[in-house]
Amino acid sequence: MSTAWTSRYALRTKGIKSSAIRELLKITQRPEIISFAGGLPAPDVFPIQRFQEACQAVLQTNGATALQYSATEGYEPLREMLAQNMSRYGIGAQPENVMITSGSQQALDLIGKLLVNLGDRILVEAPTYLGALQAFNIYGAEYVSVPIDEDGLRTDLLEASLRLGPKFMYILPNFQNPGGTTLSEARRHDLVLLADKYGVPIVEDDPYGQLRYEGEHLPPLLVIDRRRDNGHSIANVIYLSTFSKTLAPGLRLGWIVAPSEVISKLVQLKQGADLHTATFNQIVAYEVARDGFLDEHVKLIRNVYRERRDVMLNALQEFFPPEVTWTRPKGGLFLWVTLPDGMDSQALFEAALKENVAFVPGESFYPKNGHPVTPHMRLNFSNAKPEQIHEGIRRLSIAVKKQIQSRHLVPVG
Amino acid sequence: MSTAWTSRYALRTKGIKSSAIRELLKITQRPEIISFAGGLPAPDVFPIQRFQEACQAVLQTNGATALQYSATEGYEPLREMLAQNMSRYGIGAQPENVMITSGSQQALDLIGKLLVNLGDRILVEAPTYLGALQAFNIYGAEYVSVPIDEDGLRTDLLEASLRLGPKFMYILPNFQNPGGTTLSEARRHDLVLLADKYGVPIVEDDPYGQLRYEGEHLPPLLVIDRRRDNGHSIANVIYLSTFSKTLAPGLRLGWIVAPSEVISKLVQLKQGADLHTATFNQIVAYEVARDGFLDEHVKLIRNVYRERRDVMLNALQEFFPPEVTWTRPKGGLFLWVTLPDGMDSQALFEAALKENVAFVPGESFYPKNGHPVTPHMRLNFSNAKPEQIHEGIRRLSIAVKKQIQSRHLVPVG
Repeated sequence: MSTAWTSRYALRTKGIKSSAIRELLKITQRPEIISFAGGLPAPDVFPIQRFQEACQAVLQTNGATALQYSATEGYEPLREMLAQNMSRYGIGAQPENVMITSGSQQALDLIGKLLVNLGDRILVEAPTYLGALQAFNIYGAEYVSVPIDEDGLRTDLLEASLRLGPKFMYILPNFQNPGGTTLSEARRHDLVLLADKYGVPIVEDDPYGQLRYEGEHLPPLLVIDRRRDNGHSIANVIYLSTFSKTLAPGLRLGWIVAPSEVISKLVQLKQGADLHTATFNQIVAYEVARDGFLDEHVKLIRNVYRERRDVMLNALQEFFPPEVTWTRPKGGLFLWVTLPDGMDSQALFEAALKENVAFVPGESFYPKNGHPVTPHMRLNFSNAKPEQIHEGIRRLSIAVKKQIQSRHLVPVG
Repeated sequence: MSTAWTSRYALRTKGIKSSAIRELLKITQRPEIISFAGGLPAPDVFPIQRFQEACQAVLQTNGATALQYSATEGYEPLREMLAQNMSRYGIGAQPENVMITSGSQQALDLIGKLLVNLGDRILVEAPTYLGALQAFNIYGAEYVSVPIDEDGLRTDLLEASLRLGPKFMYILPNFQNPGGTTLSEARRHDLVLLADKYGVPIVEDDPYGQLRYEGEHLPPLLVIDRRRDNGHSIANVIYLSTFSKTLAPGLRLGWIVAPSEVISKLVQLKQGADLHTATFNQIVAYEVARDGFLDEHVKLIRNVYRERRDVMLNALQEFFPPEVTWTRPKGGLFLWVTLPDGMDSQALFEAALKENVAFVPGESFYPKNGHPVTPHMRLNFSNAKPEQIHEGIRRLSIAVKKQIQSRHLVPVG
């Protein structure tokens, strides 16, 4: 069917591509499949009763406000609470440094809108969060990618890439998606120093920072940057976080911390994008989180996810052949599996589906010009229950072993 | 303070401008001011109890789904309900033609993202909805504007503008914001014919269509387009609507109706923009609206707003001098006042604030190259209570009369 719209589509593409994950997730929703593909929190940990109480309280005492239009920058008490919560980590943000977004994904979109012009380069980790690439692609971004290892971004390889003049760096320091790695403290200092030396600012994406299952909290880049420059306020780092992993993703609530002049630009862009984030959700989230509830709740989530991570790590050890290796994340939702050289992770994905188990092939997490030679898969350990995780890894090991065998049987060359 | 960010801002502007309405609204929130400036629904008509029941029901029976990530295109039962509701108006949409958005404002942003490249022209009514200009400006839109009169867009002036090759037309056929005018049925047919003749598609924005206080419902452009072409499905029109004026704007729920190939592009863009609209809000809105509640509730809103419109019209008649004229909207939230030639509506706005009453000066509703010669003001009649409306128009008339007097006292030239 040719319509006036479709004939016009041919005129522009604007970097719209179908998302691999999106298409995959459709298949992996079949009930017989154990999926390690999504990045979904465990529904078991949603504080449903607390939400019920909060909805009642908000509608009874504050309904007319909660259902009305509201300020683009967000609900003031929520911004104050976030500023206060973050101050424990040394993030000295005032409420005017905080803007509420419709999930962290919107923060990425607004940052793309603000900063990226056609052909601008963004420095990203390889691999990196797929959704960030999607958000930036729309604005015509190009990428410079720098590999990660078990200590996160290889800062020793950074200078050559910084000399290419990227517009900004997009970095996930904690329990990286998809790598599961955490940027070491020494490298955090190196990164902040280099950012300043080359005048390249940092977008620090920290959705999982509170979900640490072992070891000590490391200072955010924002804090290191601030300390370096002796009390001048937040300068070279824009910091993003979210309630999606600590309260509930179905609320779509995230936030940006930035210098107030950056916030004021972002507020203008957000106004054109969706006027404001749902008032009701902001007030309900405030009501749920207040009086220390969120802190207690995060402890519960940590316990649940730590167990699931350990079940997955043990099952990998139990079932997987020695040619396969994986990261041992200290927090977050994902681990990253390195497959033997030459294995086709897309073919493995299809083979895994036949065993009723799913993951995301590693290629999805690289910009188009930065494909890896080594095949990978990303495994999520937060969503499936422990017994499913054990069984899912067993099934996956069958697919992996078959692929390895068939490689050995078919002579290369 | 000069930071790496601010030094970089100088490099790009991307059409970000401070919104006049936004700045004004801050002032007009002072409690002593009667504001006709916003486009806010009356909080008195929010169905708070129904929301309480819906929140409880959803969290009790469906909490784990309502708080989880969900599909970008929206909650399936809600899309089905909308398709069914719209079928009463002849909009033969299937659920796959419907995408849920984070308010209608997001629909405008996504359409800008999909269609507008730097320098593309969009044909708009003069005046038109400010938020649409804001959404499209970001993508580098230019404008061709065609005036409206009491029967809406002057379709007799349309062809010359269509020959300039606009990318699409952005039209508010019902109770236009800010004009309060409704596009006549004859002109709807003319418009659809011309759209087809020149191959210029239409974005039909219909936030107020259900809020008709008198007269007969007129067919949407989408329906006329569809009938013309004998049953080929929705082709040259993308249709937008929202729950903001019928349920509650604080939910941020709107929707787009479009050919499925357009929806699939918009879904990809929305995924990068905010992953999806809040699951909880979609399921709660479905629960609130179901079983005929929404229809009954809209009847209540119509009665409340009809009365307020009449109070405003009567007060204008009672207090305003004969040099001033205004539209008599058959629905919606706004009326549009034409001030005597040469009056400065910005100066009037400041004078009105001194009388503790506010409106939006007409200039805000024109693209930057399309300023009107005649001064106007937009008055909202949905938010203030009847007695406030009467008093507010009295106050406003004082400011208007003073301005007229001072004009007469100061010789021109």
